Amino acid sequence: MSHADENISKRDRLIQVAMDLFAFQGYGNTGLAQIAREAEMLPGSLYHFFPTKEDLLAATLQTRLRLLQSEVLDPIWDRIDDPIERIFGLLDGYRRMLAMTEFGHGCPIGNLAIELSETHPKIRPLLAANFDNWIRAVAQCFREAADRLPPDADPEQLARFVLITMEGAVMLARTYRNFAAYDDAVTTLRDYVERLIRSGTGDDPPRGRGAASRASESG
Amino acid sequence: MSHADENISKRDRLIQVAMDLFAFQGYGNTGLAQIAREAEMLPGSLYHFFPTKEDLLAATLQTRLRLLQSEVLDPIWDRIDDPIERIFGLLDGYRRMLAMTEFGHGCPIGNLAIELSETHPKIRPLLAANFDNWIRAVAQCFREAADRLPPDADPEQLARFVLITMEGAVMLARTYRNFAAYDDAVTTLRDYVERLIRSGTGDDPPRGRGAASRASESG
Repeated sequence: MSHADENISKRDRLIQVAMDLFAFQGYGNTGLAQIAREAEMLPGSLYHFFPTKEDLLAATLQTRLRLLQSEVLDPIWDRIDDPIERIFGLLDGYRRMLAMTEFGHGCPIGNLAIELSETHPKIRPLLAANFDNWIRAVAQCFREAADRLPPDADPEQLARFVLITMEGAVMLARTYRNFAAYDDAVTTLRDYVERLIRSGTGDDPPRGRGAASRASESG
Repeated sequence: MSHADENISKRDRLIQVAMDLFAFQGYGNTGLAQIAREAEMLPGSLYHFFPTKEDLLAATLQTRLRLLQSEVLDPIWDRIDDPIERIFGLLDGYRRMLAMTEFGHGCPIGNLAIELSETHPKIRPLLAANFDNWIRAVAQCFREAADRLPPDADPEQLARFVLITMEGAVMLARTYRNFAAYDDAVTTLRDYVERLIRSGTGDDPPRGRGAASRASESG
């Protein structure tokens, strides 16, 4: 391994360790000494790669941005073809993360957003970029299912709502240490999406074309 | 003022100051020295009332529990009669809080839930009790609007969903430092509630009584 390769792998190791620690313990509770120790490096080499803890945090958020597709989405997208079911598969992924970590974390970006958006203004755009990335992927699913949705359904708006539901549901699951609220939220979101799909032929049920055509079907 | 009264007022002052600081700065970032200073008391008297910082935190969460009705709900309930509109009035209240604090905080319980649910297991039940209290109030609104909702609509489940939406929406507003995602979430939630109300006479639109009766209205 060349010196350059070795440096890349050391840097990656630091980022990997920091990502995990920030997700589990929070940013404030994680010291650089612990990161260096768990990466089996001397603190001096850590400072060589990342002069400040915030530099390291920024690098972890850049990495998460890059890895969303390959690490989070692809394993689900490979397993599920239907774009709407992909969204619920993704929500199930966060549920698994909560279960695996015994509610230690569900969404690492959400945790950091609450902890840092006030105190670390320079980090905020990177948190927002991670949310944007996620929203873009889910909006793409809604776009692929557009023929089932009402014509005025806004894929971006729906995707933001899915993210908001997930983040709120993770918060309640972590507080209650059970899945009741999380599962309820997914059920309610599914009910909403199904109502959108049922009215997807056009106007809303009570007035106009949609209700009339459905009534003639049932009559 | 008797000695006993004076003690109550000192204790309340400490709780009030701590509530504000925990909400704005987080629990970890707030020191007892700062709380004593801002309450204009000596650190020694603080320890007299609250031997540990966690005792003080618990007292703030007990206080929030007690004040939900009078401080948060009543000002909105007094202004708005319609139970569904009360819910959206409440969501507007959190939006105002975000605006007033320049996104410094939206929901103090949500912040603390993310910060502390992992590290402070003894505090978790008090956070959950605050969520429960809120959910109970919103479920009561849905219950009062039951004649407009489908018969299988679960007021508790809907109320939990409103809380989840609010908490997720506050998180995104604080990260983006704007109201776009928050307002979108409220619009989407309202669309969902309106769809529930439109199908509230009975079964869901495409099949059965609901669609038929509505079609005969429009025909």
